[in-house]
Amino acid sequence: MSLVEQILAGDVRATARLLRDIDDHLPSAREALKRLYPHTGKAYVIGFTGSPGVGKSTLVDQLALEYRKQDLTVGILAIDPTSPFTGGAILGDRIRMQRHFTDSGVFIRSLATRGHFGGLTKSTNDMITVLDAMGKDVILVETVGVGQDEVDVANCAHTTVLVTIPGMGDEIQAIKAGIMEIGNIFVVNKADREGSRKTIRELRNLIELGLRRRDDEGWEPPIIETEALKGRGIPELMEAIEKHRRYLTANDQGQWDAVEAKRARMQLLDTLREEALGELLRRLEQRGQSLEELVHKVTAKETDPYSVVQDLLQCELR
Amino acid sequence: MSLVEQILAGDVRATARLLRDIDDHLPSAREALKRLYPHTGKAYVIGFTGSPGVGKSTLVDQLALEYRKQDLTVGILAIDPTSPFTGGAILGDRIRMQRHFTDSGVFIRSLATRGHFGGLTKSTNDMITVLDAMGKDVILVETVGVGQDEVDVANCAHTTVLVTIPGMGDEIQAIKAGIMEIGNIFVVNKADREGSRKTIRELRNLIELGLRRRDDEGWEPPIIETEALKGRGIPELMEAIEKHRRYLTANDQGQWDAVEAKRARMQLLDTLREEALGELLRRLEQRGQSLEELVHKVTAKETDPYSVVQDLLQCELR
Repeated sequence: MSLVEQILAGDVRATARLLRDIDDHLPSAREALKRLYPHTGKAYVIGFTGSPGVGKSTLVDQLALEYRKQDLTVGILAIDPTSPFTGGAILGDRIRMQRHFTDSGVFIRSLATRGHFGGLTKSTNDMITVLDAMGKDVILVETVGVGQDEVDVANCAHTTVLVTIPGMGDEIQAIKAGIMEIGNIFVVNKADREGSRKTIRELRNLIELGLRRRDDEGWEPPIIETEALKGRGIPELMEAIEKHRRYLTANDQGQWDAVEAKRARMQLLDTLREEALGELLRRLEQRGQSLEELVHKVTAKETDPYSVVQDLLQCELR
Repeated sequence: MSLVEQILAGDVRATARLLRDIDDHLPSAREALKRLYPHTGKAYVIGFTGSPGVGKSTLVDQLALEYRKQDLTVGILAIDPTSPFTGGAILGDRIRMQRHFTDSGVFIRSLATRGHFGGLTKSTNDMITVLDAMGKDVILVETVGVGQDEVDVANCAHTTVLVTIPGMGDEIQAIKAGIMEIGNIFVVNKADREGSRKTIRELRNLIELGLRRRDDEGWEPPIIETEALKGRGIPELMEAIEKHRRYLTANDQGQWDAVEAKRARMQLLDTLREEALGELLRRLEQRGQSLEELVHKVTAKETDPYSVVQDLLQCELR
């Protein structure tokens, strides 16, 4: 059986191998992704974003357990803002694996860093493709941080959950003009903490202010209180996600088509960007030049980044 | 006088016009950047990162005022994680401009979003090129968020300042494995708040743990307490920045060359990535195809992102 066939049959080892090959940018990985793609489109992708320390991982793990109880298979992708210097994500993987390791219905993978040459969103999209094709019913994607990364993850997901905790009023004000609008569902985790009511009130106000600009008019983002560690609020969150899914698929699928188009557009652009960069770097190598040589010429002011790029783009790519 | 000559003479209107042209991806902007690049290398670039609400803008504004007192000219680039749906950054520009508007020695520009086709880091680099060439002595770059964006901004700067506030213990633990190592200087702003000593102690511990992995061994990142609103700690922060600059330029410039190479490498890769994408999209247009057509074909599963990219890469770029 080929690697692709093994993955389509749900084989965990084969899947892990392809994900490593994607990480290593092997040309064979692209071929495998091409063959897997027609088998995608069955998984429901849910994104989770929020600042460090709000408890996203616990929330995601609890949801995974609940989905498993409904006999749905689950994929978890954890996108860490880990710097290129640390291996934090690998450790995180192991800890989380231990919690679920008796259950073959859960597949967990961390993306530690977008690496030397970038492409975090492309990698996320590729891994969603693989987990979808291997037959996962639900894919939970979590990112740490409040920034552009979150907007990108939102573009990979069908439903985006924005997680916060009480007492982050400064943050809430600051994200007002920021990632507020990408949230389809809001979660106030650690809701037993002081200030929970105030945080909910602030969120409610911001949601009302922001509604005009949302691309999913007609959907009012709910605010769910949770205590992920105790499992409180998890059923309500699942219900809210299911409600949003039904909202997207209702009305002759107009909303659903829009979400699918947004996801495909993102993936196309990211794939174009990264593959084009890879091709140009290979071309450079074929010329017998190295990136470091060019870096040296630029810092010595013998050339400039703009001329280098123009020169490389003028050559035939293949 | 040509636009480039006007910018080299420090003309504010000409500079603003080129920055708009860069935003609009005009081909003439690339030509201008090529001609400006040989005149760069004089500005000192300082990056500021941290979560929303920690007071980065106030800190940056205070520093700008102090540098002006030393008769140094200042450029400020504020990178906002604003979603594509809002125009928050423009408003922010106006408010900040009012504060400094009598002083032509300060040039402020916000980058609201990386826009439809990405490229936030490339835009940041391009704008640093312009402000450097127009003669700004110091360029202050601030980003909001805790994520990959911060690593990218760190790669644009000579000195990176990581800003936090007391009572964000959760966050501090969470960024431990994350962006900790990109900070050359740490600031605890709003240091009059409860928990300041504890935050400093935690940071100190993390710095000691992280030192092994730093690429600037021999530099011990200082922790500066500030109350930016009152101006407290600003002289100390300026001294720390100056100390780091002297550290980089000492020892036969070995460290300086490494930082300059890192910055050039980043800029080369980002420029390659964005220009290659732009070229491929133009090529698509020349073929009479639109991105939206391809998006439609992908969502209809008539093709897949990987095949589309392979097909586009096979054609001659020019």
